[in-house]
Amino acid sequence: MPETTLGLDLASKKLRKRQDYPYRLDYRTRWADNDMFHHLNNPIYNVLVDSIINEYLMTRVGYNTTTYPRTALVANTYCDYFGQLQYPGMLELGLRVVKLGKNSVMYEVGFFKEGDEVVKAVGGFVQIWVMRDSGKAPEEGLEPGVREKLGELMQPGLREKSKL
Amino acid sequence: MPETTLGLDLASKKLRKRQDYPYRLDYRTRWADNDMFHHLNNPIYNVLVDSIINEYLMTRVGYNTTTYPRTALVANTYCDYFGQLQYPGMLELGLRVVKLGKNSVMYEVGFFKEGDEVVKAVGGFVQIWVMRDSGKAPEEGLEPGVREKLGELMQPGLREKSKL
Amino acid sequence: MPETTLGLDLASKKLRKRQDYPYRLDYRTRWADNDMFHHLNNPIYNVLVDSIINEYLMTRVGYNTTTYPRTALVANTYCDYFGQLQYPGMLELGLRVVKLGKNSVMYEVGFFKEGDEVVKAVGGFVQIWVMRDSGKAPEEGLEPGVREKLGELMQPGLREKSKL
Amino acid sequence: MPETTLGLDLASKKLRKRQDYPYRLDYRTRWADNDMFHHLNNPIYNVLVDSIINEYLMTRVGYNTTTYPRTALVANTYCDYFGQLQYPGMLELGLRVVKLGKNSVMYEVGFFKEGDEVVKAVGGFVQIWVMRDSGKAPEEGLEPGVREKLGELMQPGLREKSKL
Repeated sequence: MPETTLGLDLASKKLRKRQDYPYRLDYRTRWADNDMFHHLNNPIYNVLVDSIINEYLMTRVGYNTTTYPRTALVANTYCDYFGQLQYPGMLELGLRVVKLGKNSVMYEVGFFKEGDEVVKAVGGFVQIWVMRDSGKAPEEGLEPGVREKLGELMQPGLREKSKL
Repeated sequence: MPETTLGLDLASKKLRKRQDYPYRLDYRTRWADNDMFHHLNNPIYNVLVDSIINEYLMTRVGYNTTTYPRTALVANTYCDYFGQLQYPGMLELGLRVVKLGKNSVMYEVGFFKEGDEVVKAVGGFVQIWVMRDSGKAPEEGLEPGVREKLGELMQPGLREKSKL
Repeated sequence: MPETTLGLDLASKKLRKRQDYPYRLDYRTRWADNDMFHHLNNPIYNVLVDSIINEYLMTRVGYNTTTYPRTALVANTYCDYFGQLQYPGMLELGLRVVKLGKNSVMYEVGFFKEGDEVVKAVGGFVQIWVMRDSGKAPEEGLEPGVREKLGELMQPGLREKSKL
Repeated sequence: MPETTLGLDLASKKLRKRQDYPYRLDYRTRWADNDMFHHLNNPIYNVLVDSIINEYLMTRVGYNTTTYPRTALVANTYCDYFGQLQYPGMLELGLRVVKLGKNSVMYEVGFFKEGDEVVKAVGGFVQIWVMRDSGKAPEEGLEPGVREKLGELMQPGLREKSKL
C-alpha cells in the first residue's frame, strides 16, 4: 500500500514532500502567529492541524459539528519541528491519514512555506469517533461513507483529483 | 477627494463595498476562530486588522519590525459588527487609510465573506509613529516614502493596480 | 448617580482607578499573549474583555450560553491604550457597566498590572440582548434579575461586597 | 531517583497527581479558550505548556529572551488528553522535567481543574538550547546554574519549597 512507504521515524518525516499529502490547502499567516522570536508560535501549528482536518471533514465528508450523531475526541496531538515559518507569508499544508482503525483515525499534516520544497514541520493527532449521546465508540465502527472519504487520504495517487 | 465620500457614521459603514478598499487580501478561516456560538470570535477581527495592515507595511512600504528606526504605537482600536462570519470558509478583507496626520494614521478594514457582497464588519485602529529610541513622534513627521505609500490607500481609484 | 462622575473622554479614562470597577478578576498572562515587540498583542485585550464580562454573566447572573432563551450580540468593540503590559506577570482587570438600555449594555474594562496603580488600557463593548429563536430584541426589555445584577456593576460602592 | 517512578506510558500518565509536579501555577481560563464544543480547544493546552515552562525559565532561572546568549529551539511537542476542561474556571498546572540531557530538556505539564484530583491532560515538549549567534548546541552543555534550576524540577520532594 502506498502509505506504508512513508516512515514515521524522524529521518523519514524530514523528507516529506507536498505530493505525499493527498489534500492540500494554503493558509495566510497572521500577525498574531509570530511569537517574541518573530517566528510562528508552536501552538499555531496545532491550530492549523485542527483547521485543515476539520475543513476536510466539514466540506468533503459532510461532518456537521452540531447535528452529526457522532463526535470526535482527540486522544493525543504531536508535532515535530524541522525549521521555522513566519508572518508575513503564505503556508501550504498537506493532509494525509496515517492509520484508519475501527473508530480511530491518525492524521498527519505537513507544513511548507510557499516557494520552498523543504518540509518545516510534521504534526497531527489521533481522534476517536464516539456516539454523541453515549460517548461510546460504536460496535459497527466508522460509517462506510466516512471510511471511504478518509481512506482517500491514504492514497497519494488520488492527490491530483482531490487537490483544491 | 474620493475618500471623503465614505462617511464614518454607522449607516455609511454598513454600505461599504469591496471597491472602497484599495488593498485587499483573502484569509482562510481556522477552527480556533469560531467561538462557542460557531461564529468568528470578536477578537479575531482585531487579529485580522493587525494582519492586513502590517502585511501592507511590511511587504509594500518596506517596514521592518526589527531594524526600522521608528515604531508604531496603537492608540485605539475599534470594530462595528453588522453580521456573522464563520469557519470554514474564506474571508476577503479590504484596507484603506481614513486619515493621515503628521505622525498618525487611521486605518479601516472591511470584512467580507467570499461570494457575498454585504459587508459584515468594519474595524481598524489609529497608530502613531514614534522614534524607536526616544519613543517620541519626530518633528518632521512621517517619512515621504511612507506617506506616499499610505496615501495610496486613500485612493480607491488605484485599487486595480494595487490589488493582489 | 456615582457612575456619571466617570467621564468617557480620553483624559478621564487615563485616570481610572481599580476602585472605579465593582467587579475585579486577575488573569495570568501567557507566552502567546506577547507579540513581536514583547508586549501584549492588542487583540488580547479584547480576549480579556470578553472573558471578564462573560465570567460575570455566567457565574453571577446565571447566563447559560446553551440554554438561556436569549443571546447577546456584540454591536461594537473599542479599546484605548495608555501603556504596555507583558508576559510574564499577572493582570488585574476591573469591570463596570457604563450604560444600561432597554436591551443593550455598554461595558467598560480597565487593565492594570499587578503592583502598579496606573491604568494601562480601557476597553469594552456594547452588547444587545435578543431572543435566541427570533433574533429580535424583546419588547419587555432585559429580565428584571439580569437588570439588577448588571445594575450592580454601575455602583462602585458595592465593590467590596462583590469583589472576588 | 524519584522521577523514575513516573512512567511515560499512557496508563501511568493517567494517574498523575498534583504532587508529582514540583512547580505549580494556576491559570484563569478565557472565553476564547473554548471551542465550538464548549471545551478547551486543544492548542490551548500547548499555549499553557509554553506559558508555565517559560514563566519558570524567566522568573526562576533568569532566562531573558532578548539578552541571554543562548536560545531554545522546540524539537517536538506532545499532549495526551484524558478529560475535558472549560471556561469559565481556574486551571491548576504542574511542571516537571522528565529528562535533562547535555543541551536538551524534556518537560511535562499536568493539567488539573480547580477542586478536582483527576488529571485531565499531560503534555509537554523537548527543547534544545543552542548558542544564539551560531545556532549550535555548545560543547560544554547547559550552564551549571541552569542545570541546577532545571534539576530541581526532577525532584518532587522539593515541591513544597518551590510551590508558589
